[in-house]
Amino acid sequence: MKALVIHAPKDLRIEDRDVTPPQAGEVQITMATGGICGTDLHYYNHGGFGAIKLREPMILGHEVAGHVTALGDGVDSLTVGQLVAVSPSRPCNSCKFCLEGKQNQCLNMRFYGSAMPMPHIQGAFRQMLNVNASQCAVADGITSGEAAIAEPLAVTLHATRRAGNLVGRSVLVTGCGPIGILSIMCARRAGADLIVATDLSDFTLEMARNAGADEVINMATTPDGLDKFTPDKGTFDVLYECTGAVPALTAGIHAMRPGGTIMQLGLGGDMSLPMMAITAKELSLKGSFRFHDEFHTGVSLMQKGLIDVKPLITHTVSIDDAVSGFELALDRTKAMKAQITFS
Amino acid sequence: MKALVIHAPKDLRIEDRDVTPPQAGEVQITMATGGICGTDLHYYNHGGFGAIKLREPMILGHEVAGHVTALGDGVDSLTVGQLVAVSPSRPCNSCKFCLEGKQNQCLNMRFYGSAMPMPHIQGAFRQMLNVNASQCAVADGITSGEAAIAEPLAVTLHATRRAGNLVGRSVLVTGCGPIGILSIMCARRAGADLIVATDLSDFTLEMARNAGADEVINMATTPDGLDKFTPDKGTFDVLYECTGAVPALTAGIHAMRPGGTIMQLGLGGDMSLPMMAITAKELSLKGSFRFHDEFHTGVSLMQKGLIDVKPLITHTVSIDDAVSGFELALDRTKAMKAQITFS
Amino acid sequence: MKALVIHAPKDLRIEDRDVTPPQAGEVQITMATGGICGTDLHYYNHGGFGAIKLREPMILGHEVAGHVTALGDGVDSLTVGQLVAVSPSRPCNSCKFCLEGKQNQCLNMRFYGSAMPMPHIQGAFRQMLNVNASQCAVADGITSGEAAIAEPLAVTLHATRRAGNLVGRSVLVTGCGPIGILSIMCARRAGADLIVATDLSDFTLEMARNAGADEVINMATTPDGLDKFTPDKGTFDVLYECTGAVPALTAGIHAMRPGGTIMQLGLGGDMSLPMMAITAKELSLKGSFRFHDEFHTGVSLMQKGLIDVKPLITHTVSIDDAVSGFELALDRTKAMKAQITFS
Amino acid sequence: MKALVIHAPKDLRIEDRDVTPPQAGEVQITMATGGICGTDLHYYNHGGFGAIKLREPMILGHEVAGHVTALGDGVDSLTVGQLVAVSPSRPCNSCKFCLEGKQNQCLNMRFYGSAMPMPHIQGAFRQMLNVNASQCAVADGITSGEAAIAEPLAVTLHATRRAGNLVGRSVLVTGCGPIGILSIMCARRAGADLIVATDLSDFTLEMARNAGADEVINMATTPDGLDKFTPDKGTFDVLYECTGAVPALTAGIHAMRPGGTIMQLGLGGDMSLPMMAITAKELSLKGSFRFHDEFHTGVSLMQKGLIDVKPLITHTVSIDDAVSGFELALDRTKAMKAQITFS
Repeated sequence: MKALVIHAPKDLRIEDRDVTPPQAGEVQITMATGGICGTDLHYYNHGGFGAIKLREPMILGHEVAGHVTALGDGVDSLTVGQLVAVSPSRPCNSCKFCLEGKQNQCLNMRFYGSAMPMPHIQGAFRQMLNVNASQCAVADGITSGEAAIAEPLAVTLHATRRAGNLVGRSVLVTGCGPIGILSIMCARRAGADLIVATDLSDFTLEMARNAGADEVINMATTPDGLDKFTPDKGTFDVLYECTGAVPALTAGIHAMRPGGTIMQLGLGGDMSLPMMAITAKELSLKGSFRFHDEFHTGVSLMQKGLIDVKPLITHTVSIDDAVSGFELALDRTKAMKAQITFS
Repeated sequence: MKALVIHAPKDLRIEDRDVTPPQAGEVQITMATGGICGTDLHYYNHGGFGAIKLREPMILGHEVAGHVTALGDGVDSLTVGQLVAVSPSRPCNSCKFCLEGKQNQCLNMRFYGSAMPMPHIQGAFRQMLNVNASQCAVADGITSGEAAIAEPLAVTLHATRRAGNLVGRSVLVTGCGPIGILSIMCARRAGADLIVATDLSDFTLEMARNAGADEVINMATTPDGLDKFTPDKGTFDVLYECTGAVPALTAGIHAMRPGGTIMQLGLGGDMSLPMMAITAKELSLKGSFRFHDEFHTGVSLMQKGLIDVKPLITHTVSIDDAVSGFELALDRTKAMKAQITFS
Repeated sequence: MKALVIHAPKDLRIEDRDVTPPQAGEVQITMATGGICGTDLHYYNHGGFGAIKLREPMILGHEVAGHVTALGDGVDSLTVGQLVAVSPSRPCNSCKFCLEGKQNQCLNMRFYGSAMPMPHIQGAFRQMLNVNASQCAVADGITSGEAAIAEPLAVTLHATRRAGNLVGRSVLVTGCGPIGILSIMCARRAGADLIVATDLSDFTLEMARNAGADEVINMATTPDGLDKFTPDKGTFDVLYECTGAVPALTAGIHAMRPGGTIMQLGLGGDMSLPMMAITAKELSLKGSFRFHDEFHTGVSLMQKGLIDVKPLITHTVSIDDAVSGFELALDRTKAMKAQITFS
Repeated sequence: MKALVIHAPKDLRIEDRDVTPPQAGEVQITMATGGICGTDLHYYNHGGFGAIKLREPMILGHEVAGHVTALGDGVDSLTVGQLVAVSPSRPCNSCKFCLEGKQNQCLNMRFYGSAMPMPHIQGAFRQMLNVNASQCAVADGITSGEAAIAEPLAVTLHATRRAGNLVGRSVLVTGCGPIGILSIMCARRAGADLIVATDLSDFTLEMARNAGADEVINMATTPDGLDKFTPDKGTFDVLYECTGAVPALTAGIHAMRPGGTIMQLGLGGDMSLPMMAITAKELSLKGSFRFHDEFHTGVSLMQKGLIDVKPLITHTVSIDDAVSGFELALDRTKAMKAQITFS
């Protein structure tokens, strides 16, 4: 079978890998679709991010969906032929954090396509993959492309849960890449009233509006666009910060209402914060990291038509054109989510 | 102008009342539509409920919407001609609870159509009414019938906020009158996943399904219909109890998951509870009373099309046919929300 | 070795049991002290409680402490000679509730001295007991009598955590048996300001005052003693209801402040509640069941002198006088906590 | 009467001011004791802090207590002769934040000794002061020195409430000036288990230990002193950051446990944060600003002996020696809280 292997920056190869039978508790997935994520792009462009660097060839990919084609011993929760979204996350369920219900903090987490440990944890951009049955969410009724969005959707659902009750709240979303767009969808689904989105690209802001934003602001062309939300100590109850950029976070903080909550989703290394404003307005800045049962929640909400991620998928290429898919995904003026098909 | 005045059980009269000009801070509303609520029906049928009894004639009604036809001095937040939903609630904004942000617990609350204080607080089923500008939520873009649903919608939004974050949660709604149906809509809007509704009437259960319930159960014909949700200590994270009936609450408790939350909305006087189950499953039973800023929230969500209450309105009669409207509203096999038009 | 075995109401026998070596992961405890709990008294007096009835002889007891006298294979967290408080609770750490961090809701819980499953789970009133190392909290520095209070202390600490932040709050405790007294101590430790306690016995109320209550009320002699706390919708933020008696809970509800929290700790079967008051004041009635990591927390707080449970221990008898100890424990005019020594 | 007036850095003068009678709703306070706060020291040393600069002479001081010596019309909650702690905070109780119960966010706040508005709000270091009766907390039974600690105590109580339930939690306090020491006392009062404190001064760390810290670390002499708390993703549930210094906050973040809460109390302008760690460990960084009803809470806890702030007061000088008092207060190797007496 074919797999997409990153060797070095811009050196992404299609390679052959052996197919092995599923072990007890596992199922064999014949992969249908995989989405290219920001992390994949960092490996592709830079060979890593921050302190994490490629030290050996690694299969990329962790946003995937496919069909069950064989069952290992003891699996009775799935049947051959089902479409499943595959969670890239496999916690140990026995460390202290797992026993507190914080599986996303598992001390022995295995997460597809990560160069953090050595040997690296190989990813899921491959034609066949054996996974634990518990990693699968049955996705019948939606497309494999939608099912492959389950992972980033779970990330934003997890952040949305941590943001508290959103019914009737005012929400600001800074940064309208896939995580920003999914944040808008989640905030809308969770009952938010006013939703405002900012970005530097008209293309992504148009998608933000279609995703449910009441108002969009291009901070490149209207740098003072948030000023109207700052009087009387500010407007927004919740900020989804999806850029990791200090100017976006700072502008957002000044538009926040006293007591508001900032969900930090963008990853940007060290960031300088106007701590005086955070203190004086009693804001809460909360980290949000991956997800746990929100993976299944997201698939169910998509199946019921309560969240529609289809508009997010702007490009689909076959595995043989994967490199062009990665290049496309890098262009924020045209691409939102680029996906790869594996058959 | 005409007003609908209750004198005694089944003695509802159309009477003439003087029109007075709006005072400073007030606006004059020419009433368009009013919804008949369960409380109104109690006064109509029984002359009161529980310890509260009519002691003088009282204008009924607190679910109303109309048009601004005159402005008192100092009002600049509204303009003549606007359609507004009128909140029946007017807190003092100076007692200790108001200064804690709990206006629904105001020690000096004035709430339309209440026989609790003497003299009674006259209601809003009348052709003209002067109200404080702060009681008005501009409702342009929706019908006056929808706007008149703002009050019960606010009740269920308030309960929904008190229920915690509902994203991906499993919800049970017992009792599918207007409050139950609006609870379903709110739970859906707030991100619930599985929603199950119970009642004793196929008519209301059909409306429950249309409002977004995934599954409906007629407990009259399928008394064991919740049994499948009880294994492994139960299924539901949240229960909206909208009947005030002990059997409904008890059945609901046994289907609740450990740590779940029961929002008690139905009013039924003293209720006997299986306290052992509440303790052992660590359930939280929470009262929810009226609303505050959820009134404006509900109007905004309706204006954006995020909650659609139109299917709730099953009957509309003119003020001259008000008595027949009240009789209709009593019939749970045919009527959900009956409304009265005032012009 | 000797064990205390209940055969039927009032039929408590000292019997001989074999000593077995500790298995891997276990330690052998030579028991020092055990406290008689309300549950033990129910078995002793009535042969059970509610639907739970003795169906075979059962060793009683679940509030115990002793010394480690042998280590099973693989145990390196304890050493021979240590005094340990032994938790009666052993969750499976693999069911769905354990994996949510709700070990007290474990589907496969084993809890000492319970006649709920058949065969019954034998209790800990015995001279030797092998327990899992994870059930032990090292208690050096306090007495074995204090260590044996760790279990009921954990119950009240768990309730205190569920009650929310208590700093500066007003607290009412209804019922001043051991759970009520420990609730007072926990509320005080958690930062409560005003603490008021009620009971029907001057003896227990005197202990309540010593435990930190600012004011105590004998509801037998001063039935209107809570009336001064009811004006303006009530006074207390938190109620620890430790009687399971409807009059106590009802009087407490009327003295609660809007938005207050009731922790239901007393077990009294079905209870009739003034639901109208719960709804109108938006109270939260919360069940609280057993404990998890609060067991270790309680031992640590006792070791630091931050909670002093010694005054609670009013009687200590040897195992050979156990029956007299049970009779003493039944007398609420003289006994708070009666304990048994095993060596 | 005499007042302490700052004119410019290091230019603090004793000046004469007129005495006026109390207005309706006010009481006249004959000041007994005032504590020198970090803000006062900034005005004294630098003529302001951050963007806030002295633009006219201003009486300093906002931590004060004194005796009621005259009552304005309509005051019946106080009597002449009472010792009262005087809150420097006077919210309007009518703006939108006051009506949400967030009086510390009042849009029209008047807070003693602030050069932010022009004209400046004159402070309370003066022999006589008329204050609103609502600003007074009766402090009979404690000394005027303790009563003058009510203000910084209220600040740390407010932060403690915002930190969530602390029962059994592990707490780190970085920075052991008066706010750090009071944070230790509050965390202890709120039920914390392990409390660790860091600073660069042995003098303040000795006070931290006396205030209840289980362990103290001098980061100047033991820069890796927190390393033992970092394994397995860290130890502390709550951090009170009381330095405003980036190295302290950063070291604290690495010692925090996943899901932990950072209360930012130190004021240090913009701060660079390791956002990756905040995100990956899902920390919550919360601002905390002043206080509201915690002012009365703190006085009550001191009166009951539940918090003992006396050890904090290291120096007391008369108003005539105020300049030497300010110089003393600047020396962190000898002074914790320096106070001034006014009679």
